Amino acid sequence: RSEEMAKLTQLIDNEVFRAYATYATIVLLKMMLMSLITAYFRITRKAFANAEDTASFGKGENAKKYLRTDPDVERVRRGHLNDLENIVPFLGIGLLYALSGPELYTALLHFRIFAGARIAHTFAYLIPLPQPGRGLSWAVGYAVTISMAYKVLKTALYL
Amino acid sequence: RSEEMAKLTQLIDNEVFRAYATYATIVLLKMMLMSLITAYFRITRKAFANAEDTASFGKGENAKKYLRTDPDVERVRRGHLNDLENIVPFLGIGLLYALSGPELYTALLHFRIFAGARIAHTFAYLIPLPQPGRGLSWAVGYAVTISMAYKVLKTALYL
Amino acid sequence: RSEEMAKLTQLIDNEVFRAYATYATIVLLKMMLMSLITAYFRITRKAFANAEDTASFGKGENAKKYLRTDPDVERVRRGHLNDLENIVPFLGIGLLYALSGPELYTALLHFRIFAGARIAHTFAYLIPLPQPGRGLSWAVGYAVTISMAYKVLKTALYL
Repeated sequence: RSEEMAKLTQLIDNEVFRAYATYATIVLLKMMLMSLITAYFRITRKAFANAEDTASFGKGENAKKYLRTDPDVERVRRGHLNDLENIVPFLGIGLLYALSGPELYTALLHFRIFAGARIAHTFAYLIPLPQPGRGLSWAVGYAVTISMAYKVLKTALYL
Repeated sequence: RSEEMAKLTQLIDNEVFRAYATYATIVLLKMMLMSLITAYFRITRKAFANAEDTASFGKGENAKKYLRTDPDVERVRRGHLNDLENIVPFLGIGLLYALSGPELYTALLHFRIFAGARIAHTFAYLIPLPQPGRGLSWAVGYAVTISMAYKVLKTALYL
Repeated sequence: RSEEMAKLTQLIDNEVFRAYATYATIVLLKMMLMSLITAYFRITRKAFANAEDTASFGKGENAKKYLRTDPDVERVRRGHLNDLENIVPFLGIGLLYALSGPELYTALLHFRIFAGARIAHTFAYLIPLPQPGRGLSWAVGYAVTISMAYKVLKTALYL
């Protein structure tokens, strides 16, 4: 069994794979942060989606008025959904890309730009920055993912 | 080629990786169940999102009245989205964690608690249980994922 | 290090794994296309979710009227969310399935049917086709994922 473990450890010892592991974890933690920001705005704006979440504010009509949408809460939720839509492709395509034998320098460039673009996207969404701030940061992450997908298909295509 | 196949099979023979495969599959099947529950409530509550879904109820205004939201349908959909937001990080970080060489006992502990917390979260959302039932089950799954992310970054960090 | 790289390359040299890499990339690119279609409808229908996105249409009330939902935009967004709900399980379970040592023929059959079903689902959603067109394409992709999950649990189960 320690021999198998050694083989697995070799995967995580590979520098490209370690870079993928690092940046994939960073963007996932950033995405998870959106849940905490949503909770923060729901509590400070007193805007909830479930009746059981408002029970601590009293009973009946008094609690019901907090079952509402709030612009700040909805903004964070849109940012969270945009993360899901863009980070899921990065996770899948990035893993396959890391296994397709790219140069370490090229791989790091892809991963760093993607992570930077998604962090910039979050700031652009939450501040919010005037357009095309958010649009550009979104497009950069999108283009990086397309570039990795091209490498995966060039290396592995088997239809 | 059978040699390569053997190498791949070694991955799935590793006990930590098998545990990851088992619990990742379980939580994904649980998430997929949300689609069936949504369909069940859409049909029993007669609440649909697309005009073509209501065509069997007749034509014109008679069918249009079923294009509406229903509290039970929306509740399941929120639970489904919460699954996506939390199970995607578990999938990605959990895979990297399984490859980072954790002790089998520790890895099983992480995977079991995460799966249990997400199953509890679904019951808390759908019954629904009074808070902090849902909040706690969410937080436990979140904390497990953070703990795995810490191990991944400690083992693999390559910026 | 080149030895490690060789081991990684062996993974991507395996035919089942290459097939997974190919079809996973295809369905993720298809999902990413939904972002572009959403942007296309938002711009042509002039229906936006964020105030900063409407700034180019003028100031004050003139711009505010474009902060609205549009049936075509909402339809694409539902299709995008349905992709997330179904492609995330395929990504995770499909990867584990590819590592569980299936026959190449059987694996290709699963991957091809899933990709075909999701592409059909998108056409059924966006045209839109009368039911049960969309329902059936959804169910086929769902059934393929369940079939792969069964193989993963049969091969790897470790609770």
